Amino acid sequence: MTQITNHMPTEELQRLDAAHHMHPFTTNDDLEKKGARVITRAKGVTLTDSEGNEILDAMAGLWCVNIGYGRDELAEVSSRQMRELPYYNTFFQTTHVPAIALAERLAELTPYDLNHVFFANSGSEANDTNIRIVRTYWQEKGQPEKTVIISRKNAYHGSSVASSALGGMSGMHAQSGMIPDIHHIDQPNWWAEGGDMSPEDFGLERAQQLEKAILELGEHKVAAFIGEPVQGAGGVIIPPSTYWPEIQRICDKYGILLIADEVICGFGRTGNWFGSQTMGIKPDIMTVAKGLSSGYAPISASIVNDKVAAVLGACEFNHGYTYSGHPVACAVALENLRILDEEGIVSHAAQELAPYLKEKFESLGDHPMVGEVKVVGMMGSLALTPDKTTRAKFAADVGTVGFMVRERCFANNLIMRHVGDRMVISPPLVITKAEIDTLIVRARKALDEGYENVKAAGLFKAMS
Amino acid sequence: MTQITNHMPTEELQRLDAAHHMHPFTTNDDLEKKGARVITRAKGVTLTDSEGNEILDAMAGLWCVNIGYGRDELAEVSSRQMRELPYYNTFFQTTHVPAIALAERLAELTPYDLNHVFFANSGSEANDTNIRIVRTYWQEKGQPEKTVIISRKNAYHGSSVASSALGGMSGMHAQSGMIPDIHHIDQPNWWAEGGDMSPEDFGLERAQQLEKAILELGEHKVAAFIGEPVQGAGGVIIPPSTYWPEIQRICDKYGILLIADEVICGFGRTGNWFGSQTMGIKPDIMTVAKGLSSGYAPISASIVNDKVAAVLGACEFNHGYTYSGHPVACAVALENLRILDEEGIVSHAAQELAPYLKEKFESLGDHPMVGEVKVVGMMGSLALTPDKTTRAKFAADVGTVGFMVRERCFANNLIMRHVGDRMVISPPLVITKAEIDTLIVRARKALDEGYENVKAAGLFKAMS
Repeated sequence: MTQITNHMPTEELQRLDAAHHMHPFTTNDDLEKKGARVITRAKGVTLTDSEGNEILDAMAGLWCVNIGYGRDELAEVSSRQMRELPYYNTFFQTTHVPAIALAERLAELTPYDLNHVFFANSGSEANDTNIRIVRTYWQEKGQPEKTVIISRKNAYHGSSVASSALGGMSGMHAQSGMIPDIHHIDQPNWWAEGGDMSPEDFGLERAQQLEKAILELGEHKVAAFIGEPVQGAGGVIIPPSTYWPEIQRICDKYGILLIADEVICGFGRTGNWFGSQTMGIKPDIMTVAKGLSSGYAPISASIVNDKVAAVLGACEFNHGYTYSGHPVACAVALENLRILDEEGIVSHAAQELAPYLKEKFESLGDHPMVGEVKVVGMMGSLALTPDKTTRAKFAADVGTVGFMVRERCFANNLIMRHVGDRMVISPPLVITKAEIDTLIVRARKALDEGYENVKAAGLFKAMS
Repeated sequence: MTQITNHMPTEELQRLDAAHHMHPFTTNDDLEKKGARVITRAKGVTLTDSEGNEILDAMAGLWCVNIGYGRDELAEVSSRQMRELPYYNTFFQTTHVPAIALAERLAELTPYDLNHVFFANSGSEANDTNIRIVRTYWQEKGQPEKTVIISRKNAYHGSSVASSALGGMSGMHAQSGMIPDIHHIDQPNWWAEGGDMSPEDFGLERAQQLEKAILELGEHKVAAFIGEPVQGAGGVIIPPSTYWPEIQRICDKYGILLIADEVICGFGRTGNWFGSQTMGIKPDIMTVAKGLSSGYAPISASIVNDKVAAVLGACEFNHGYTYSGHPVACAVALENLRILDEEGIVSHAAQELAPYLKEKFESLGDHPMVGEVKVVGMMGSLALTPDKTTRAKFAADVGTVGFMVRERCFANNLIMRHVGDRMVISPPLVITKAEIDTLIVRARKALDEGYENVKAAGLFKAMS
């Protein structure tokens, strides 16, 4: 048995990684040729790799490490719970204190009467659970033909077959196959798709597609609408102000369930505890994950309101995961929420950091390759474009230029993600103003270097 | 904010649990009336509840705590990893040592050339991933019409919409809806469905249903067959000896992929490291979870052989979970595997404990309500019946009698699960012979008390 440690040479770790580890969303043969970057430790907002580089992680892992890296309190809670009760299930009429305490805390933190918590391990599993919740709800209400869930193109709701069907990523649909009774309307992405309309008119038009879809599909068949308050993996698409009020009006008018996917938006990301508060919507079901534990332990939940719980509670709900309410994951999440709250991390981020991040990130808007720059709370995005007045796309495959800029971010010790030709950030909520300054300096350098590379490759021109 | 601890009165914990915690596979309104049992701590094979009862857990949590409760080494590893690197993703060309080391160790432990590991959080997610792997594999091979996966009725492959569709539990299908291109053949459950055939003939007949299905569906459309080496949640159904060799022959003949769902069977449960070894099959894809971390952390994997990896590696595989290869979960799993191996837990269970468990558990076969008793390695089941010569079912809804016996197990501080009218066990692999004796004493007492209750309820009669 080989002992594999951080002290091995990078090339040896890369060789073993390529031999045995299949990476998500990756062409593994290509990665093998290049060699993966090996992250060895982290503290605050800073990652260290096996070559000793110190990297500013402006993505909080994968939109999740809201509390920052290196919080020993979570390690202590984890080991304490693991010594006491490392695992027990919540099936078969049993429970345990960590699941009770976290469920109670979530009921308290969430707005409205979202009081009932069904635990899972990931955002994918929680959104997959939501499909079953919604369909069971209407069956129990005596309307089993209400099975259709309406979602948006370019939405991201997870990677299981069903949650990815719920999402709007066609590359994922092609590999897994679709599931019945999911319908997609267009996204409220004004920069890419708004044409000559004002953002406000466009937001209204996109929201009204929901009403059109309900009428076309048949009101008696539509069960629910799902949306991220702010699309995350789709590129941090902040909808026009007219969008969500109109969606809420339509959901209310037709009595369909509204699911807010708060996997990315939840736990302080948008300047409130939940994105639903920022966008002024009142969901019947909320999906939470990521920031729930700041990524320190895999855990997620579907949180339903009293109306939905009253219906579901009366029937046997044939669903659950071995690790639903895992005691260690629940204990870690609870401690994370305690720290986010008691240290005022959510409120400090909202009041102090978010305005600063907005000002600094928007300053990148003067760059020749940068079009729209959008920030809400502690997440933001900028559109790369060869012509900011016409909002043109590059004359290259979508993502080519974004990838070139991301590579320059990597080279400048900044983790910023590209979604197509949009660059996105979502830093830990504990980032300091000085670290925001560093983020902006490195981002500008990466943009400058990327711009040179794009021009050298002859790609700084608009698609005809 | 309420501080919720193990020191609160049971009734108060039950009240909070009912108010906010939705339990898996439960009618929550019924549970609210009764109050959930609160598990507070555990050590070895013994759970303690909030009333101070000490309960022998003959189900290892939920088929997962192979190593037993209370191993401080895992808590130490967990907290050490959490302090160093609590989270990082394995997307975007990055990796970390815990994922590399666990992938390498799994490649070493698994038989044949199962050398490539895709991580997820649960058995559900790994089986869901397998659907995408199988379909992508055939697309990349230029046969995109090969999408159908054949499974068995009464199989259990998870609870996501797609993995439950793969499974054969009709109550789950009814609530979520099905997905396209999943086909179910009959299970090799001789006791319940074998009629007048010998077990060997019956096993052959059930396996040959696979060939019939391939020919009926069209060879050009069938992508894979999935099966648990021994059906677990279906009731610990150990197939006749003729079954798996014939399945293997048919998979080989038609070149379809064979997926072994080792979520329950893996890591020593059946008397070998993997159930595939016990049953003599050579899968292309193996699903692992549960025993991988002994339940101390949520983690699972799809492990594929060189043939499948060669095809998948050449394309961009559009799939993955935020917590795929979670560093803490990987570190915990690795330490669990080290202990299982270095302390000889798997070999000791196979050589010493399994024969003892078999002898003792089979001794329950003289009970007037017990028919077939089956044991393989460290898992077993017994069929409850009003007439063991005719293998009759009770004149009551399936599961009524099983539930009555399970209630008596609970009352006698023994966790044994019922699946319909079959009682199943799957204790931690660290159980002692003395604890096996206790298990049998309590099981017999529960059977005796259950028998009295069944007779008193007028249910000890065969279905006409």
